[in-house]
Amino acid sequence: MVTQPFGAIEAGGTKFVCLVGTGPDDIRAETRFPTTSPERTLQQALDFLSAEQDRQGPLAAVGIASFGPVDLRPDSPTYGQITSTPKPGWANVAIAGAAGAALGVPVGFDTDVNAAALAEQRWGAGRGLHSFVYLTIGTGIGGGGLLDGKLTHGLVHPEMGHIRVPHDLAADPFPGICPFHGDCLEGLASGPAMHARWRQPAEDLPEDHPAWALEARYLALALVTFVCTLSPQRIIMGGGVMSKPLLFPLIRRQVLELLNNYVRAPELLQQIDSFIVPPALGHRAGALGGLALAADAVRAPLRSELTADR
Amino acid sequence: MVTQPFGAIEAGGTKFVCLVGTGPDDIRAETRFPTTSPERTLQQALDFLSAEQDRQGPLAAVGIASFGPVDLRPDSPTYGQITSTPKPGWANVAIAGAAGAALGVPVGFDTDVNAAALAEQRWGAGRGLHSFVYLTIGTGIGGGGLLDGKLTHGLVHPEMGHIRVPHDLAADPFPGICPFHGDCLEGLASGPAMHARWRQPAEDLPEDHPAWALEARYLALALVTFVCTLSPQRIIMGGGVMSKPLLFPLIRRQVLELLNNYVRAPELLQQIDSFIVPPALGHRAGALGGLALAADAVRAPLRSELTADR
Repeated sequence: MVTQPFGAIEAGGTKFVCLVGTGPDDIRAETRFPTTSPERTLQQALDFLSAEQDRQGPLAAVGIASFGPVDLRPDSPTYGQITSTPKPGWANVAIAGAAGAALGVPVGFDTDVNAAALAEQRWGAGRGLHSFVYLTIGTGIGGGGLLDGKLTHGLVHPEMGHIRVPHDLAADPFPGICPFHGDCLEGLASGPAMHARWRQPAEDLPEDHPAWALEARYLALALVTFVCTLSPQRIIMGGGVMSKPLLFPLIRRQVLELLNNYVRAPELLQQIDSFIVPPALGHRAGALGGLALAADAVRAPLRSELTADR
Repeated sequence: MVTQPFGAIEAGGTKFVCLVGTGPDDIRAETRFPTTSPERTLQQALDFLSAEQDRQGPLAAVGIASFGPVDLRPDSPTYGQITSTPKPGWANVAIAGAAGAALGVPVGFDTDVNAAALAEQRWGAGRGLHSFVYLTIGTGIGGGGLLDGKLTHGLVHPEMGHIRVPHDLAADPFPGICPFHGDCLEGLASGPAMHARWRQPAEDLPEDHPAWALEARYLALALVTFVCTLSPQRIIMGGGVMSKPLLFPLIRRQVLELLNNYVRAPELLQQIDSFIVPPALGHRAGALGGLALAADAVRAPLRSELTADR
């Protein structure tokens, strides 16, 4: 017996990834294409999924893992929309509604980072955990995750890249590049921030360049904030910048130094190598998260955003 | 008909408060006494509640709102204990177990700030909310709250006072007083930090003293971090330092300036006066939280720490 597949759209600021399948070991179709205008890009995604419906039979549901900010409040008139993004043309795009109307199936919808966290919990580095953080450090810095078994939502959703961290201007006079906040975490430590500070792409910086110690410092300061604020069981760090493996040991050491034995959990003090880890699902975590969101959309009562207390 | 009452112990680092009742409008007995040795102080609390049991009939349950760090993991051999506190004599005190054994009733147990948040949700400034933060700014700085309807736990529990915030040493050369972290939030902005920096108690500083603008600055930086990390619907700020009403407008203005319209929720942009608020239950929030924890302990399946996913 073949299980009815789900569709997934990972809507990224630079590219879209679409999948049909049920999980990482059962991907029946996949495509990726650059993000251009919302009309054209959305149509490409929906055309791909429609064609797969024709070929494979109906999808059980579709899950959308979207760049943000997005409106996740089910009682809001703009639920399912990308809201105030500075990305030209993409503000107020009703991405979830468009997919539901075009495909005639239930739609799950969340941030790209929450979706990636859900995929990591189901199939990857978050298995067995009820509370963990998923961070992506790339073109931007974003964070999501599960707290006590539920995806992080709240008033809107977290914007973890925009916390302020200590910035020693004597050691690092770079002012930061966030158009909203200057030297917030994203302004100091995203890929474009590294590029602007050192005048070359992060991936070209040699391993002995001081850029990496500074980058690890800012990320460790942020991780300490997340440990003190969210008390996660694990922090998964993905994204382009984190593809430099040398960062992990640097970050782990600084997190321990900064916490200075204050939070006395063996998971931190004795098992830091399994507390701060890369994603197990690699660059597919977001799109696989779309499949997980789709699966949850057909089991609607399990979706946290539809429970009675919201 | 008289409802069977609950007992509550607010175990603070400087004083204990014990209540018997069912809520803020039904407090049938109350006592407070200074925190000395754990043997003596715990005995005083249990003697008070035992005597009330003799007088009023059996308590339905007892709730303990404790200073920390505490062990909240029900599957842990040290569940219900104060763990690594630097407070002399109080490390590894099994406060929840002692109360259960002495009184023979179910025991609810959580951090003082989580308990205060629960009380504010039930009877105060958190009514109708599923996600909010409760902060106390006093002898220390602590934070708890509810996220998606559940008290914040995670790996251990949040230690929000120990996040790092930007510290401009040129403007504020004070090095901070946290024995673990120096200039973390608590090290810079707790009551004792203000006292050490300005060489006089915070409550004696006149309203036009520059201390208050600096204090508001650090607290606003922290609130921005909590907004970006937890996405709360409201932030309730209590504790001795916050009893200076002038702080609220200063903090609100700086939070808006620091966020710079990035998080576009009307609750923030148009209703900041009801987004950052004092507790409605005042200095009794913690002890009333003990009553709320007790009520939840008799409805055990509702206690998040006993659900299957933990």
